[in-house]
Amino acid sequence: GDAMVDHHRSLRQGFPEVVFGAGKSAGQIERIMASLAARGNNILVTRLDEAKALAVKEAFPVAVWHAAARCLTLEQKPAERRGRGTVLVVSAGTSDLPVAAEALVTLRMMGNDAEHLYDVGVAGIHRLLARREALAAASVLIVVAGMEGALPSVVGGLVDRPVIAVPTSVGYGASFGGIAALLGMLNSCAAGVTVVNIDNGFGAAVAASKINRD
Amino acid sequence: GDAMVDHHRSLRQGFPEVVFGAGKSAGQIERIMASLAARGNNILVTRLDEAKALAVKEAFPVAVWHAAARCLTLEQKPAERRGRGTVLVVSAGTSDLPVAAEALVTLRMMGNDAEHLYDVGVAGIHRLLARREALAAASVLIVVAGMEGALPSVVGGLVDRPVIAVPTSVGYGASFGGIAALLGMLNSCAAGVTVVNIDNGFGAAVAASKINRD
Amino acid sequence: GDAMVDHHRSLRQGFPEVVFGAGKSAGQIERIMASLAARGNNILVTRLDEAKALAVKEAFPVAVWHAAARCLTLEQKPAERRGRGTVLVVSAGTSDLPVAAEALVTLRMMGNDAEHLYDVGVAGIHRLLARREALAAASVLIVVAGMEGALPSVVGGLVDRPVIAVPTSVGYGASFGGIAALLGMLNSCAAGVTVVNIDNGFGAAVAASKINRD
Amino acid sequence: GDAMVDHHRSLRQGFPEVVFGAGKSAGQIERIMASLAARGNNILVTRLDEAKALAVKEAFPVAVWHAAARCLTLEQKPAERRGRGTVLVVSAGTSDLPVAAEALVTLRMMGNDAEHLYDVGVAGIHRLLARREALAAASVLIVVAGMEGALPSVVGGLVDRPVIAVPTSVGYGASFGGIAALLGMLNSCAAGVTVVNIDNGFGAAVAASKINRD
Amino acid sequence: GDAMVDHHRSLRQGFPEVVFGAGKSAGQIERIMASLAARGNNILVTRLDEAKALAVKEAFPVAVWHAAARCLTLEQKPAERRGRGTVLVVSAGTSDLPVAAEALVTLRMMGNDAEHLYDVGVAGIHRLLARREALAAASVLIVVAGMEGALPSVVGGLVDRPVIAVPTSVGYGASFGGIAALLGMLNSCAAGVTVVNIDNGFGAAVAASKINRD
Amino acid sequence: GDAMVDHHRSLRQGFPEVVFGAGKSAGQIERIMASLAARGNNILVTRLDEAKALAVKEAFPVAVWHAAARCLTLEQKPAERRGRGTVLVVSAGTSDLPVAAEALVTLRMMGNDAEHLYDVGVAGIHRLLARREALAAASVLIVVAGMEGALPSVVGGLVDRPVIAVPTSVGYGASFGGIAALLGMLNSCAAGVTVVNIDNGFGAAVAASKINRD
Amino acid sequence: GDAMVDHHRSLRQGFPEVVFGAGKSAGQIERIMASLAARGNNILVTRLDEAKALAVKEAFPVAVWHAAARCLTLEQKPAERRGRGTVLVVSAGTSDLPVAAEALVTLRMMGNDAEHLYDVGVAGIHRLLARREALAAASVLIVVAGMEGALPSVVGGLVDRPVIAVPTSVGYGASFGGIAALLGMLNSCAAGVTVVNIDNGFGAAVAASKINRD
Amino acid sequence: GDAMVDHHRSLRQGFPEVVFGAGKSAGQIERIMASLAARGNNILVTRLDEAKALAVKEAFPVAVWHAAARCLTLEQKPAERRGRGTVLVVSAGTSDLPVAAEALVTLRMMGNDAEHLYDVGVAGIHRLLARREALAAASVLIVVAGMEGALPSVVGGLVDRPVIAVPTSVGYGASFGGIAALLGMLNSCAAGVTVVNIDNGFGAAVAASKINRD
Ligand SMILES: Nc1ncnc2c1ncn2[C@@H]1O[C@H](COP(=O)(O)O)[C@@H](O)[C@H]1O
Ligand SMILES: Nc1ncnc2c1ncn2[C@@H]1O[C@H](COP(=O)(O)O)[C@@H](O)[C@H]1O
Ligand SMILES: Nc1ncnc2c1ncn2[C@@H]1O[C@H](COP(=O)(O)O)[C@@H](O)[C@H]1O
Ligand SMILES: Nc1ncnc2c1ncn2[C@@H]1O[C@H](COP(=O)(O)O)[C@@H](O)[C@H]1O
Ligand SMILES: [Mg+2]
Ligand SMILES: [Mg+2]
Ligand SMILES: [Mg+2]
Ligand SMILES: [Mg+2]
Ligand SMILES: [Mg+2]
Ligand SMILES: [Mg+2]
Ligand SMILES: [Mg+2]
Ligand SMILES: [Mg+2]
Repeated sequence: GDAMVDHHRSLRQGFPEVVFGAGKSAGQIERIMASLAARGNNILVTRLDEAKALAVKEAFPVAVWHAAARCLTLEQKPAERRGRGTVLVVSAGTSDLPVAAEALVTLRMMGNDAEHLYDVGVAGIHRLLARREALAAASVLIVVAGMEGALPSVVGGLVDRPVIAVPTSVGYGASFGGIAALLGMLNSCAAGVTVVNIDNGFGAAVAASKINRD
Repeated sequence: GDAMVDHHRSLRQGFPEVVFGAGKSAGQIERIMASLAARGNNILVTRLDEAKALAVKEAFPVAVWHAAARCLTLEQKPAERRGRGTVLVVSAGTSDLPVAAEALVTLRMMGNDAEHLYDVGVAGIHRLLARREALAAASVLIVVAGMEGALPSVVGGLVDRPVIAVPTSVGYGASFGGIAALLGMLNSCAAGVTVVNIDNGFGAAVAASKINRD
Repeated sequence: GDAMVDHHRSLRQGFPEVVFGAGKSAGQIERIMASLAARGNNILVTRLDEAKALAVKEAFPVAVWHAAARCLTLEQKPAERRGRGTVLVVSAGTSDLPVAAEALVTLRMMGNDAEHLYDVGVAGIHRLLARREALAAASVLIVVAGMEGALPSVVGGLVDRPVIAVPTSVGYGASFGGIAALLGMLNSCAAGVTVVNIDNGFGAAVAASKINRD
Repeated sequence: GDAMVDHHRSLRQGFPEVVFGAGKSAGQIERIMASLAARGNNILVTRLDEAKALAVKEAFPVAVWHAAARCLTLEQKPAERRGRGTVLVVSAGTSDLPVAAEALVTLRMMGNDAEHLYDVGVAGIHRLLARREALAAASVLIVVAGMEGALPSVVGGLVDRPVIAVPTSVGYGASFGGIAALLGMLNSCAAGVTVVNIDNGFGAAVAASKINRD
Repeated sequence: GDAMVDHHRSLRQGFPEVVFGAGKSAGQIERIMASLAARGNNILVTRLDEAKALAVKEAFPVAVWHAAARCLTLEQKPAERRGRGTVLVVSAGTSDLPVAAEALVTLRMMGNDAEHLYDVGVAGIHRLLARREALAAASVLIVVAGMEGALPSVVGGLVDRPVIAVPTSVGYGASFGGIAALLGMLNSCAAGVTVVNIDNGFGAAVAASKINRD
Repeated sequence: GDAMVDHHRSLRQGFPEVVFGAGKSAGQIERIMASLAARGNNILVTRLDEAKALAVKEAFPVAVWHAAARCLTLEQKPAERRGRGTVLVVSAGTSDLPVAAEALVTLRMMGNDAEHLYDVGVAGIHRLLARREALAAASVLIVVAGMEGALPSVVGGLVDRPVIAVPTSVGYGASFGGIAALLGMLNSCAAGVTVVNIDNGFGAAVAASKINRD
Repeated sequence: GDAMVDHHRSLRQGFPEVVFGAGKSAGQIERIMASLAARGNNILVTRLDEAKALAVKEAFPVAVWHAAARCLTLEQKPAERRGRGTVLVVSAGTSDLPVAAEALVTLRMMGNDAEHLYDVGVAGIHRLLARREALAAASVLIVVAGMEGALPSVVGGLVDRPVIAVPTSVGYGASFGGIAALLGMLNSCAAGVTVVNIDNGFGAAVAASKINRD
Repeated sequence: GDAMVDHHRSLRQGFPEVVFGAGKSAGQIERIMASLAARGNNILVTRLDEAKALAVKEAFPVAVWHAAARCLTLEQKPAERRGRGTVLVVSAGTSDLPVAAEALVTLRMMGNDAEHLYDVGVAGIHRLLARREALAAASVLIVVAGMEGALPSVVGGLVDRPVIAVPTSVGYGASFGGIAALLGMLNSCAAGVTVVNIDNGFGAAVAASKINRD
């Protein structure tokens, strides 16, 4: 019934409807998507594993499965391009890629131009510095990093535009599932960095999208 | 010597130089301000108590002491107005006022139009709802709250613009010096809320200022 | 033997006997239920998964399986209606439903009239405000919320009756399995909100039931 | 100005206005009291030290200073008696007395009959058991305890009425300023115990008062 | 090879050799037991699951599997009785039984008379008080409790003999895997209670055994 | 009144009455002591600073002030010698001395022979090994250590008698006021070590005294 | 593509390339190894389980699987011997062996002479003291320990050479997955002990290798 | 007496004797210094405030007070120069200076050539990069940083020599007195960085000194 459709985090007009896939069965996701699709909306499902995604795709063959991002999208009409510039997602290690990818899919579903700069960790600072032009060209930056979470401080020192930091749960031992990175980012010595929840690539993209809107 | 000048919160051109006053003596602050003032900069000193501020003001009579914000400002030339709209600072309790005030002083020193909506806590939701027009008119919102830190979620659900949440250390017992509010904000069910460190009104204002710039 | 009967959650006369199903095998639950049923009691088994429940139901075909609540009930005589009014369970997200359902089943087994108001999170405050009459009509309110746990503060500001807050383990990253919601509720700025353990829909219902008794 | 009067936790009609004294100067408290008194309200100021209280009393000679409770009260009209029964405050050690006293003053200002049972810790269980009749006679119980916070579990096993547990910050080392007691109470094996923030005698009294109302 | 036999926690003469079974394969346990048995020792293997235990029993058919305690024992010569009195293990809930059973098996393997008093939680205090004679007759008491961990305080107030408290990981939510019980016990208001690690029935038994020795 | 007498640390017959001095004024301590002394008891006051102690001594000139232990004792009749052997208090650094001294004063007031072995930290293991005979001669050992809290493990490996570990709040940074030492002791690889609260020299002495009794 | 090659743990010339195996599929590891091997590098893959290792070995039959260390190595040219002396890895319990083994494999891949001293826990101090000559002969020491993490303090007191401490996640209950050991090591009373992340045998070996280089 | 001299952390021959000044009175420090000076040793007293230092200097006029480092040194014979190269101390903010200075004084008292590179935080990375030659010339590096503690990762990526990271308690809010910096350093993505306790400039210098010795 209606109780299955949880509207409490729905976004505003012009944006897709978003379904948080974690903890929902393929059947539940299908029913929610059907009800949303009937209203003509574009749909973004996040936090999906491959098995569930393939099951859902049988009901919605047009839907696209983004494996790295663990997201499924259904575009019934093209997302309206409204951003003032490019949102740049910056990430360091291989293991941060899924969170970066979730941000990228979300950004594009919300009508932004989005690019990805990866493999630029702080322990090999020259790789980051070699890309200063890309950094300077962005209108908003999302910086994804696990372990010590230092990348947003360095990036924040190189650019003048808003930086949104996303800690990831990548690491072991005293990384405490992302707490070390989260604390590092909250204490960033680069003024003006803001932070979202651990692994919340989606939330960072929504914030960046609001900033990027004219 | 030069080592006394702490650049770690210095911003970019067109912005004031910033001195973090906590843990510095009046004498140290004076020497740093003298060196910065000589270059013609505007200066913002944060985290100052009244005694130190008055001592410093003897050397810089033109400086202005913002008691509620615990900030001292020295404007040698008027801050260039560059913002696209008004930054709205929203706060709940009496005790959140100093953090809100730090944000307001910083915003104005950085050339933004800034307003303050106060006394609008979540336990008396009608007072907040009565101000929906003010909320809707803002280009960026800074929401300051202690205790359970719920205000940014409610505000985030009412507006489409970027919301920056500032947890405060107000509270006792299980508020753990602002941790409860910080966690509440990081877990906000209003997508797109970003968060800064506990009591960091300054950092929120810098982030908002970058967003508000054209 | 007798050691298998875990009395530690047993209630007073007129109430059902309660079995905490987590960590007990279907066989153990059956033996405990048999011993309790022999004394003519009504029985409530909480924290059961479907497989165990179906196994137990083979021995007690009359027992009812409440899938959403993960509870099994055996009513040998109808629960005596003793409440002064209606207990209202309020919840926000899809994922809080099991905890809310556990509270509802418990309330009814203890002889209360109980209703459920769902899908009313703080980030879409109008949905909650649209139900102010239902809120005002309740004699006791149980408010179930995960993530930032803000809902009890808002509800507590709208009603004069006792509010019991139940944090849920819903969320990820810095929700820390319900700690963020728990701290939010303990620090509620709505005076008079009391709190139970994370996911403890059962305990909230017992407390509400004692309040609701004449 | 008006900003000084923080209404965000004000209670409903028939109740006193409440001022949270911590972090406010005597002058600020005086100004807030003057504005509230002018509307004819009864006033309760909590979390006050003796020096501030005496300063405020010079402006309001009729106000009463409750030293043990660290509260100041101003009664312009007698509190309307509305409770269904007696609220019993139970406490263990000498050091829990201020929190218990804060609860008692609040209960009486809110129109309840309230009694105090003290010096009944769990390590001398006979003293508690000797008072079973007093326990059984109460309509609501507030149980205040520090250190291991075990008292509410024992009391909750002895009575059928609602029990509100208040952890106190009494203790040292691994009591962590009340966390040990708080966790003990949240995990109480006596079903139906609810909990408030550490040292929050005021909040427990407001909750008890709502329960005790007819 | 020799590296497989980890002597670092071996006990003194007259005691059994002890093997910590967690994280060791059946094959590894067999090899260690063979090497120890060859020297004529009695052997106690703790933290074993049933599958491993049955596999090991094929090599040592004389060994005894204690299912509740998850221990395997091999007695080549009867344990020398050396205790001054009876060690009493006291526990509350069903779920604390495995830890209590581990203590009992260890106590007996170390030559102590040991008894078990169970189903005596603090929320039904009369059941405990009904057994005061058993409590008073013990020479040492081991008190096993999860959730709020209050039982050792009450027992410690009823007896004059040494009390060793064992927190268990039983519980959910804010029990944090035994932390709530551990903190409760460390803060016991009954002077002279000492504490061991969460779920460490074995360690409590070794300590009690040393106390019980003449 | 009677409420001023805090019984929560009172012991059994033959033992002194104990007053926990922290948070009590000199006047309060005097009144409690007068009431206890009138019944002929010996009295031990712990956690006292020098100023309070000297004030109290004016009323009880016979009382003895133990500066290192921060304890005041009043012996009206000599403590009955009842121990089976010597209790040995072992400590490492200069800063652990106050906690060790509190244990020693308590042990002697409770009728035990007690000795002190100090300056034997684990980083200079030869000093400890040079005292193996003293260690072996004790009937019970109390081991006091801050920082990493490793001393009880080493001592526990050298003796067969019961070892009670007392973590101290000595240290800085990641010692977290004694948590590092507490955790070290709870995880001791020497089986049979039991632990008391941080800085609780008194509690360790009460436990040792019960063990040492015949 | 290139994004698959995770450089973030790559070392300098003369050292092997390192692949962090956790969270990567056998296929991903194979592709990374192929790209690195093509440049003639030696390769060390850490944090691998046996199944993945065997799959990878099919593509690189020359690679060696170190089961205890959970590492796979591919040596295309012998590691250049450059160390000034022997690096000694010291460990205590059976369960610390994998971390010690990871350090040993890494040390040898980086051109160091490395030895292992095991089964020398602090609760049986004589076994450690019996090996003082081996300790004194080392140029750098890596000390691996779980539970209370005391071994580095004792070793640090016996030698003059640099000591690197590695906490392990071995333990249960209040060991908190290695936090107890980590804190113990950070608070070591043996001056000059430095610490790496929990279970980070690899990182300790890299640090030791840099120290051991001439 | 002798008990006042705490040898448990004394260093080896050729090194100074070290006194930990925190928590010791000027009188105690004087007595310890007198006893050590009588044996001809050089002495380093750490963690001293100015008042105590000046009091002690009256007894030892030759002693030198290092205000920034809060250390007092007494050199009776020049420290033997034994290092292989220069130890470089790198620090970021003004507030990290005392910890860096403690390291520098310790390094020099232990016979090392030591230099200081300051004002090189990660948010202004060009200042650090401008000093790459100084970094490359060091034989060991001590990197001192508070807030997010990111500096050691960047430095560790620029040099091949051993890097010892010192977190400082500088910061506020979610820096938690240095925990954020500590966790950041333990999770450094630059392999081979080792870490000491928060604010432990002394310990880092002792470790660096052992590494620097030939
Ligand atoms: N990956 C994600 N992380 C955090 N929040 C999300 C994520 N994906 C979706 N959401 C939020 O979850 C809401 C949908 O939740 P639900 O109704 O449970 O599917 C959306 O409106 C989003 O605000
Ligand atoms: N001791 C107390 N503990 C918790 N909350 C309190 C306490 N005293 C007053 N309050 C709340 O604080 C509100 C007043 O806060 P303020 O406006 O800052 O004085 C009241 O309405 C109460 O809800
Ligand atoms: N259940 C247990 N809990 C804690 N420690 C144990 C337990 N069982 C055995 N031990 C200790 O582990 C040692 C054996 O460990 P291992 O050599 O790994 O088998 C024994 O000597 C005991 O001190
Ligand atoms: N600032 C410091 N931080 C950590 N440990 C120190 C410090 N200063 C001295 N120590 C250690 O403390 C020992 C002396 O302690 P004490 O005998 O109490 O003065 C020395 O041998 C050092 O190992
Ligand atoms: Mg990173
Ligand atoms: Mg708030
Ligand atoms: Mg919620
Ligand atoms: Mg208590
Ligand atoms: Mg229990
Ligand atoms: Mg120690
Ligand atoms: Mg160990
Ligand atoms: Mg820094």
